[in-house]
Formats: sequence, C-alpha cells, structure tokens
Amino acid sequence: MAEEKLPTRAQDFSEWYNQLVLKAQLADYAPVRGCMIVRPYGWALWENMQQALDRRFKATGHQNVAFPLLIPRSFIDKEKHHVEGFSPELAVVTIGGGEKLAEPLVIRPTSETIIGHMWSKWIQSYRDLPVLMNQWNSVVRWELRTKLFLRTLEFYWQEGHTAHATRGEAEIETRQMLDIYADFAVNDAAIPVIPGKKSDAEKFAGADVTYSIEGMMGDGKALQSGTSHFLGQNFAQAFEVKYLDQGGQLQHCWTTSWGLSTRVIGAIIMVHGDDQGLVLPPKLAPYQVVIVPIYKTDEEKSSVIEAARKLKSELVATNVRVTLDGREGPSPGWKFNDWEMRGVPVRVELGPKDVAKSAAVLARRDRPGREGKISSPLRGMPEAIAQLLVEIQQAMHDKALAFRKANTHHAKSYDELKMAVENGFAYSYWCGSADCEAKIKEETRATMRCIPIDQSLGEENAKVDGDGTCVYCGQPAPERAIFARAY
Amino acid sequence: MAEEKLPTRAQDFSEWYNQLVLKAQLADYAPVRGCMIVRPYGWALWENMQQALDRRFKATGHQNVAFPLLIPRSFIDKEKHHVEGFSPELAVVTIGGGEKLAEPLVIRPTSETIIGHMWSKWIQSYRDLPVLMNQWNSVVRWELRTKLFLRTLEFYWQEGHTAHATRGEAEIETRQMLDIYADFAVNDAAIPVIPGKKSDAEKFAGADVTYSIEGMMGDGKALQSGTSHFLGQNFAQAFEVKYLDQGGQLQHCWTTSWGLSTRVIGAIIMVHGDDQGLVLPPKLAPYQVVIVPIYKTDEEKSSVIEAARKLKSELVATNVRVTLDGREGPSPGWKFNDWEMRGVPVRVELGPKDVAKSAAVLARRDRPGREGKISSPLRGMPEAIAQLLVEIQQAMHDKALAFRKANTHHAKSYDELKMAVENGFAYSYWCGSADCEAKIKEETRATMRCIPIDQSLGEENAKVDGDGTCVYCGQPAPERAIFARAY
Repeated sequence: MAEEKLPTRAQDFSEWYNQLVLKAQLADYAPVRGCMIVRPYGWALWENMQQALDRRFKATGHQNVAFPLLIPRSFIDKEKHHVEGFSPELAVVTIGGGEKLAEPLVIRPTSETIIGHMWSKWIQSYRDLPVLMNQWNSVVRWELRTKLFLRTLEFYWQEGHTAHATRGEAEIETRQMLDIYADFAVNDAAIPVIPGKKSDAEKFAGADVTYSIEGMMGDGKALQSGTSHFLGQNFAQAFEVKYLDQGGQLQHCWTTSWGLSTRVIGAIIMVHGDDQGLVLPPKLAPYQVVIVPIYKTDEEKSSVIEAARKLKSELVATNVRVTLDGREGPSPGWKFNDWEMRGVPVRVELGPKDVAKSAAVLARRDRPGREGKISSPLRGMPEAIAQLLVEIQQAMHDKALAFRKANTHHAKSYDELKMAVENGFAYSYWCGSADCEAKIKEETRATMRCIPIDQSLGEENAKVDGDGTCVYCGQPAPERAIFARAY
Repeated sequence: MAEEKLPTRAQDFSEWYNQLVLKAQLADYAPVRGCMIVRPYGWALWENMQQALDRRFKATGHQNVAFPLLIPRSFIDKEKHHVEGFSPELAVVTIGGGEKLAEPLVIRPTSETIIGHMWSKWIQSYRDLPVLMNQWNSVVRWELRTKLFLRTLEFYWQEGHTAHATRGEAEIETRQMLDIYADFAVNDAAIPVIPGKKSDAEKFAGADVTYSIEGMMGDGKALQSGTSHFLGQNFAQAFEVKYLDQGGQLQHCWTTSWGLSTRVIGAIIMVHGDDQGLVLPPKLAPYQVVIVPIYKTDEEKSSVIEAARKLKSELVATNVRVTLDGREGPSPGWKFNDWEMRGVPVRVELGPKDVAKSAAVLARRDRPGREGKISSPLRGMPEAIAQLLVEIQQAMHDKALAFRKANTHHAKSYDELKMAVENGFAYSYWCGSADCEAKIKEETRATMRCIPIDQSLGEENAKVDGDGTCVYCGQPAPERAIFARAY
C-alpha cells in the first residue's frame, strides 16, 4: 500500500485525504453508495476514542443503554422542527418478513423520539430524575454528497439523552457535555477546538439551543466535531414526558441530547496529517510505538530480533501499545514509510550496530527527518518512550493551536472577512440576524460556525472588546462569531 | 418495582421469565413489534460479557471492524443455502432520501455476504491470510414469535469472520472459537454448556458444519448459546474470495463465522434465577456488592453512612464493583427485595449494632435466607468479599451442573427419550439420519441439540460406550446426541 505516494496537501487537500484514508487502511468504500467500512486500524482508533469518552460519561453519572434501530415513521412527525429537519434524510423499511408493513419504519437518524416515547412510561416522579443515558451505535441519514468519516449514510457515534426536573439543570448538563467534548478533543485528540453556540439556522432540528466544538483543519476549513443540544421541553411535550414534582403537580421534563461521531477521525486526519500520511496523537493511537528490526545476515537477525522482543515486552509491561514489525520481505525503508502512512507516534529502529552499543534510534512521527531522531540507550527505554509520548501529545496540540491562531483573522470589515475565509477563520462581530448570516454564506460560502463561549478564544491576555458593529450590516453587535468554510 | 412478587418458576416459568426481565429492569418492550430496549442494568451486564469475550478474541489475534448495516438485496442471493435460510426473515429498505431505491437494501441479518464481497478486494496473496475479524453490532431477523433477549427482531451480538488458506486452518479456527465460547460460558457465566455439532437440519444457512454450545435452562429446556460455523468454500466461491498461493496458483479461501448474542442474558436468567428474581454470576454482575445501610435515628444514620462509605471506597480500591444504596424513603427490607430481584451476588447489611462491633452481615444471593448470611468483621472485609465472590461463582456453576446432570437421562429406548424430554435432556444414540431426527421432533417436540464433542459429557469416569443403536430406528449409531425441547 505504502509504495505509492500521496498527493501533497498543497496540491489537492481533498484527494490527499481520500487516499490517506484508504492507504492507512482506516476505512474503505462499501458496496452501498455513501456507506463505509471501518477497517481494523480505523476501528481500533475509534475504540480508543470510545474508551476516552465513555470513561468521562460514566464518571459524570451516565449509563449506557440500547434503543432499537427501527422507529415508527409516525414518531418522527411528532416534533415539528424535528420532522422538517430529518424527513428528507430517512431510510424507510417498508417490507418485513416478506410482507408490506402496515406502518413504515425508519432506521433511526437519531433517537430523541423513541427515547421520549419510553421516558413517558418510565418517568413518573421527581425521584426518577435526572435520567442520564448514552448509547453507542450507528445511525442512518440519506446524505447525497459523502466522504469517508466526514459524511456517510451510516455513521458511528454516541448519542447521549438526559431528562431533568428543571430548565437550569438541563442547561447545566448541556454545557457540561460540551465541556467534556472539548476536554476530550484538546487532551486526547490534541485538537484545540472552539466551544460555542450555533445560530438558529445551524442548530439541531428540535433544539432550543445547540452548542458545538469547532476545529480548524489543515486547509483552514472548519469541522464541527461534536454537538450538545438543550432541547427545552420540545420533545417532552411532543411525547408527554412528565413527572410529579414535590408539590404533587405534573410537570414536563427538560431534556438534552449530545453526540460525537466518527467524524472526529476525519478531524484527526486533517488536523495532524502531513504529506507522508497520518499522524496520530499518542493517547488515541492503536499502536503508540512500532519497533522495526534491521538486519542483513542470519546472525544479525537473531540478535536484533531478540533485543526487539525484549524491548517489546518491556514496553507492554509499561502499558505502552506496541507492535513489532517482524514481516519478512519488505525492507526496513518500506516499513518506515508504511508506519509513517499509518501515523504511529514513535518508531524504534533497531539494527546490529544499535544492539552492539545497547541502544536504538527513536524517530518521532510528528517531526519527520533527522530532527525527530535520537539514539537512546535500551536500558530505561520504556520510561524514555513513555515520556516522549507525553511530549509528542503536547507538541501536536501546540502545533495545531499555533496553526489555528495563525489562520484566524480578527476581521473588522467585510472585505477582511472575505479574505480571511479563503484560508482560515474570520472572527468578527455579528449582529445576530439570520439575514446577515445568510448573505455572508451566499456571498462567501462561509457559515457562522459558532459564537465562542470564551470570546477571548483562550488567549489569556486578549482584550475582550465588548460591543462592536456587525461585519456585514454595521449595526450594533454584542458578540463575535467564527465564520469559515466548513466540511 | 420489587413490591409485586414474581410468579414462581414452578407455577409458570415463561411468565416468571417475562416479569423478571421487566422488574429487574434488564429490558423493556419497544414500540416496534418484537424489538426490545436494553435498559442500563441489562446493558451493563452485556458490557461485562462483551469485555470478557473481546479480551479472548483479541488474545487469539482477532481484530474488530465495522461493516455497514445495509446490504444490497442481491448479495443475499449469491449463496444458495444462505438465501433460502434468510430470505423469509429480511427487513427491506425500499425508500431512501424520499426516493424509491433502484435496488432494495436489506438490514443485515448477518454479514457473511458483504464481508465476502470486501474480502475479494482485500485478499490477494497467501501473505494476506489468515484474516481474523470480529464486529459487535446488531442484526435484524423478522421473527414472528418473540421473547425478550431470547428472540427479538433486532438483537445484539458479535459476529466473527475469518478467512484461511487451508481447510485445516479454518477447521481449527471453528473449533477454537467454540472452545472460547464454552470457556466463557463455564468460567464467566457459570453455565455448564455442552459443546457439540449440529445436524444438517439445524446448521447455519450456508455452513458445511455448525457447532454450538447448549445449556440447560431451569425448566429443563435447551438454549443454544453460541454457534461457530465452518463455511468451507461456500461463501469464498459465491464472492470469489481468492488468493495466490506460494506456488503462484489462485485458490479459494476457506472461511468461518461465529456468533454469540444477548440470548446468553436469557440463559443467565433461566439457569441461575430463582423465585425471588435474578441471580448473577459475580464475574459478570454490574454490581458485585450492594451495601444497604440500616438506621432509625439521625445519630445512627451518620455513623452507619460513614462506615458504609468507608467500606465502599475500600471495595472500589480492591476492584470490586460496588454500589451503596443511599435512597431515602424505601425501607431496608424493601431494598433487600429490590436487590434480590436484580441478582446482586453479595449484599452487605450494615446497621448501628454492626458498626458498634466493627462488623457487617454478608448475605449471599445464591443462598437465600439465614443459610447464606454471616457476620464478618469490617477489618479485612474487602479481601473476605473478594474471596466470597470466587466461592459464589464456583458454587453457581456447580449447582447448575448438578441440575443438568440430574435432568439428563441416558435414554436407551424411544419411550425413555419421550419421558426424558418432558423435563430435561435425553442423551441417546442416533443413527444420524434426518428422517429419524424429523420424526422425533414431530412426535416429541424435542430437537437434536448437538452431538457432544466429548461423548462422556465431561464425566471423567464415564464409560464411552462406542457404537450403539439409534433410539428411534434401531439401526447402528456411531454417536450419541442430545435431544431436548428448546428455546
């Protein structure tokens, strides 16, 4: 696979991405239009992401459940915005067991409706609240233009659903989950995301408020990488989810939902990848270390392989995820390229000269070439590698953050905004009107990504200007928003 | 929930089961006929089962993947036995994105076909083999008579799929996975299963040979609890899965598939449950221990809760899964019943008198009443509980094995077989003919469950008789088979 080079990112970012996904064996195209197969390497990455998130969900009291993938068509119609948003995207089952169904069933595009239906049975009293649920599954939305991981008919995600007694509790939950997504993105995926609020035009069909985390990809475009919705009482009213409060009065619940999907694999590729292929953050990499043995003679082979096996078992004992590439046939150079394509954070090059001096060469994936190589003694190497993985994780985040800063322009005029969105984010005052938002989109292809919660964008010394004037209409504007072209 | 008693197993085993599933909050009926919702407690049990199996799969070199849930209808038709077996059970998507599809898609009933299709692209050479894959997902089969966990339209499972260069390797894989299922059933689920070979009438649609593990439920009926299929070259031929061998010749691969589903939750309920509810094996129980504090006055409450919290954190530190039932309102007695319904292996009863003497009462779920209660010092309690959990795990297995032995009859005549299958297994010589099998089924409602691989049924001193005569037709019969009514 790795013999053929990728196009460079500068040549063709989109084609670079498509080929990388295939060559790194993350995923492949399925025989059904717009669907994907997540291959073992891609799924191992997703499993690590799942664990990192699931740990956070459980630590905050959420429990996993499984609701069915088939939903009566009529459920979708019960919430008016929901039906508008999702009707055009449904996959509909009309035949079951050889017979036409009396009522068509849809494959879930998301599960608010069926969960609302069940909550109306399970929730009786304030004592039953809050209900904090999550499920890991796949959903189907009939997308027309698809791209592996970024937009497919079926995709893998988690969907969290919670019900609360009060508006305030539901709002706190919505923001808590947004914070968890941001924490995961920054600390595990090494992606410096911007958490913020979506416009009404971009919010979830059925939500009162949608928050998202937005990342900047390697081409300056934005990718929404997780969303958290405050659903108000919309679904609770549509499905009669009510509870008896402490005063004996029936009240509607306040609900939330939140999701993060395999799109984030696309974000990891596009934020960290380089012209040689994937670059994986150590915390999520299926293999954090690959050991490549180098030898010519049988005698060299036996001493090199012995040292490599010893190192491997020491690394395993240090809880480092490691593989030893013992393939016969491919040359060491071919293997280097192959593992670079797959983005393994640290490569250990181990040849007879290294063994003779009880050392090995460590090569950092995030710093290709000589600069990222050091010779290191075999003794104490597991600890040195563990430390190196921490450094790489941090360096990848810092590099991505520096890139985002360099390509985020505090555009004060519309002309500046137009220039900014050519290769990055425009950060501009916006009056909040849907008209200005629509015009900007029409004229620049940039959408309002979010109104950052932290208007300083995390720059500790940044002056938060207070009110300004809308970059489009010039009217007073209370807040600044990120505008960008987006995936 | 727990106030209303279950019917006893003797009164109505089927209704006891249905009510237990609901009252223990393992699952609920979905608004779509025949589908289920797995509730948090049921899903936590399944997650523990997944981990126990996934660890074994990975240790034997299998990698997880994700193939799409939608399969072109035409794929199902490519393997002649497969299409016969699955066509009547398909859920068919005919509309996507508001338009009628040119080719209908089916929701996967299992994934041999789409995996075969992809393997034909991925597998080129003997160097690519073996391919060892697994996926955790749900599948849909349009069943008419459904029962929670045992038979639902959608169910959760894992499906393993492997491709090999030789028949021998594929046969070894098939048996290895059967052994893994048996090991899991015996050592984690505490269910003494019988591994064996299915008849042609009962094998998987498209397999050359199907193996299964069969367990005896509390009513003497059998439940198939996992299957492993040797698929020969059937799917490799249908989907042209070929490789270049070391001599440069194109050869068809030999493939296997194997699956274990949420049915096994049904087995755990029916093997171990009693008239008070669920009894969970410690290795899989979401909570291994529940601490129930007992107090009347505020003063008692403060000392009891403090001791309970301390014990809880000590148990957590010992890697025991523990919950502290601090609910206000319900009485201790109500809580005892509630946790008995949910099958928690050990209950710690902690009242002011216990605290005064630095002790607590441990109650074993598998031995209800006084017999299963002992007072134990708080000091050293985590170690004592860890030991107790090991004992309970073993005792549950031994009890289930004794029950199976007591209800397995070595039926030498057809009359004996008819009696035996009224309340257990008949173990009888069978000539191997489909006619005898069909007649026995028609006349007794008992099916040929499997030909046990170990014809001594694990009894070390059992004489393996060698040839005998068929219990139905009297012709020579080389092996004995288990006949039973089954779920």
